[in-house]
Amino acid sequence: MLTNDQLSQWDRENFFHPSTHLAQHARGETPTRVITGGEGVFIEDRDGNRLLDAFAGLYCVNVGYGRTEIQEAIAAQAKELAYYHAYVGHGTEASITLSKMVLDRAPKNMSKVYFGLGGSDANETNIKLVWYYNNILGRPEKKKILSRWRGYHGSGLMTGSLTGLEVFHKKFDLPLPMVKHTIAPDYFRREDRSQSEAQFVAHCVSELEALIEREGPDTIAAFIGEPVLGTGGLVPPPAGYWEAIQTVLKKHDILMIADEVVTGFGRLGTMFGSDHYGIESDIITIAKGLTSAYAPLSGSIISDKVWKVLEQGTDENGAIGHGWTYSAHPIGAAAGVANLKLIDSMGLVENAGTMGSYFREAMRDAVGDHAHVGDVRGEGMLCAVELVEDKTDRAFYDPSKKIGPQLAAALLKRKVIGRAMPQADIIGFAPPLCLSKSEADTVVAAMAEAVREVLG
Amino acid sequence: MLTNDQLSQWDRENFFHPSTHLAQHARGETPTRVITGGEGVFIEDRDGNRLLDAFAGLYCVNVGYGRTEIQEAIAAQAKELAYYHAYVGHGTEASITLSKMVLDRAPKNMSKVYFGLGGSDANETNIKLVWYYNNILGRPEKKKILSRWRGYHGSGLMTGSLTGLEVFHKKFDLPLPMVKHTIAPDYFRREDRSQSEAQFVAHCVSELEALIEREGPDTIAAFIGEPVLGTGGLVPPPAGYWEAIQTVLKKHDILMIADEVVTGFGRLGTMFGSDHYGIESDIITIAKGLTSAYAPLSGSIISDKVWKVLEQGTDENGAIGHGWTYSAHPIGAAAGVANLKLIDSMGLVENAGTMGSYFREAMRDAVGDHAHVGDVRGEGMLCAVELVEDKTDRAFYDPSKKIGPQLAAALLKRKVIGRAMPQADIIGFAPPLCLSKSEADTVVAAMAEAVREVLG
Repeated sequence: MLTNDQLSQWDRENFFHPSTHLAQHARGETPTRVITGGEGVFIEDRDGNRLLDAFAGLYCVNVGYGRTEIQEAIAAQAKELAYYHAYVGHGTEASITLSKMVLDRAPKNMSKVYFGLGGSDANETNIKLVWYYNNILGRPEKKKILSRWRGYHGSGLMTGSLTGLEVFHKKFDLPLPMVKHTIAPDYFRREDRSQSEAQFVAHCVSELEALIEREGPDTIAAFIGEPVLGTGGLVPPPAGYWEAIQTVLKKHDILMIADEVVTGFGRLGTMFGSDHYGIESDIITIAKGLTSAYAPLSGSIISDKVWKVLEQGTDENGAIGHGWTYSAHPIGAAAGVANLKLIDSMGLVENAGTMGSYFREAMRDAVGDHAHVGDVRGEGMLCAVELVEDKTDRAFYDPSKKIGPQLAAALLKRKVIGRAMPQADIIGFAPPLCLSKSEADTVVAAMAEAVREVLG
Repeated sequence: MLTNDQLSQWDRENFFHPSTHLAQHARGETPTRVITGGEGVFIEDRDGNRLLDAFAGLYCVNVGYGRTEIQEAIAAQAKELAYYHAYVGHGTEASITLSKMVLDRAPKNMSKVYFGLGGSDANETNIKLVWYYNNILGRPEKKKILSRWRGYHGSGLMTGSLTGLEVFHKKFDLPLPMVKHTIAPDYFRREDRSQSEAQFVAHCVSELEALIEREGPDTIAAFIGEPVLGTGGLVPPPAGYWEAIQTVLKKHDILMIADEVVTGFGRLGTMFGSDHYGIESDIITIAKGLTSAYAPLSGSIISDKVWKVLEQGTDENGAIGHGWTYSAHPIGAAAGVANLKLIDSMGLVENAGTMGSYFREAMRDAVGDHAHVGDVRGEGMLCAVELVEDKTDRAFYDPSKKIGPQLAAALLKRKVIGRAMPQADIIGFAPPLCLSKSEADTVVAAMAEAVREVLG
């Protein structure tokens, strides 16, 4: 058996970790944490720590860790056939079955699903298809993509451009010029504090209208948005936001891409965020919850409206020039089939709604009145606590104080994982959808202690 | 058990296949082929066909199908821990061990490996890192990427731009403007047939020099190339090509990205194509052979020279803003560890060299003299047969005659899978590296019959 020191040395010498301070890690200034197992909402590391993972990995292990049904489905698929490609009409029983299961659960106007690997590459596929769509329709100028500040849609070149967070742009020359951002629907952080929620929605709409006017509606292909802002701070939209935004998009014939990587398959207490908020999406991005991360798999669900044009495109131009070697990988597909069955049999969509509400209310009761807690919010099994230096003036901390990371560290000391969101002092919680009442209470108690420890 | 008809119907109604004629498939004009299993170089479908897969899926199942060692490693990892993320210094024993195994096998000047999912996203990572690298070095204008016509580097927006094949550009507005292509090192298809191989290499160099001159060397960040052109037709470089190209790149301080998705881990009869051709790469892309496709996993191997600048970048700017949720996925890492061990224990790198040579020579003996066979070529376990209408004049067929696809179909009738390469009448063979002599003979015999059937 390898020693921890040996693994740590190999790690520092060879492993380029994502979203990591590379120099500090290589110098040994930050810890290597080797995860060895998990069960339900708990994970274990090689040092014997057992932690309550209240962020479900990266809000993806929706069914919880250690589910034998998915483990066995993966093992069985590996034994039967680990891989064959899906090009030119090839498939496996798992990939075909999963395509039907996804469409059975998707909003009614959806037609087909393309399977990729992660959310980033699924959004990459979406933008390619949107450009193709407008070329087939003879509108070669209609190509720009609208996104929102604080949105998260991946960290590739195009998908990192769609993302509206500085850390994904800085030093990478992003966003690319064909992506334009409009304001985040973050009522708590509205500039004009005198606005009512309805006035703020009207303000979001007028900002969007002004952007479209500036760029020219005939140059804009699509708008992409998460039903609830995710990595940007777990921010549900103000009431009426999606209805108002969609009216503008329809007026200008701009496609709606709903990025449901976080919200798809139950996190909001409904199967899809599009249904939850009445969003009539033209394309829906899925990933995390599709397999609960047991194997990499993402998808682009394509509406009837878009699919018809893609068909026309291949009739005019032959086979579509798009595909990954690992599109619809059998291991991912088998994990997806088992995972979606488990979501149903465990009643996780319902639990995300009811237990999510309980969790959020308990959190609000525990820390909402604290002088440095500005907002406790969420939807379904999402909960965020946003910290402020001054509550009355809604004054934020200087980022250099690293209040968010300090709080996450204080939680970790109490064996609870919450996430310091990247672009503000926000602690995010997105537990597995199987969270129980007593586990919710544990997280809330740890957070209450952590807030007191760090903020008094 | 599902019936074939039921699966076929679900498939047509729900499944968006990559690289497929979408309209024909939805209308039921092209077959659904459901693959159910495989062993060694053979796969089986749901209709009971057993086919010799002489393209190893999409040249990725390098160890062959049905290897229990990898199946069991996947099953064991799924049972122990299917997923945890690799952000901020997290890892698993599998992912850390694999990082060391990759570096142990990589060229000496390599330092770290970032794990992605497929070749497309690995090249996406590479371009992001190259831009970051030049920003850290204070050269914000040095950003363009040089690639080659007929190169294949993915089918995303940036990676499809790097790809130099029309089918991946048409109707997708690619290539993006920061990507510039130079000529393919395809001696057989050289324009000036009077050129010797050395003269053709000099011509490739002068074309590259002219392109760099036109664009301005200070605007060019990197050159990307496959050691042997893959999807563009399985074309080994003319003698001296890489040495001559590298001299030019070094002169202008242009980074070399070797795309070894196809050639990495043994396909050429050496562990890496960079070693095979003496390419001093700054970044190496890996995917397919890393796991033999048993689970999705790719990688970007970063040289000491580039890594040092990335470290400097995080010291100046904090954690790097790049990562996929499924970076270094444990299932992929476990498959990779087992796969690399198997490549060693089965002696597959050596077999790729010796049996690859045997296979290619046998192919040349069998069809090389045929009036419509213009070229039989390859390297290691790669072999291509290029067809011509007139051998003396090296006149090519009209693409509308679909000679390549006809030949692939004639092979399939004989239960052998070869691939009609996308942009010329070329039949490609890239069998699993475990190919035996008798299996090589089977493929050659089927090809000889197919050539006679289609071309007389």
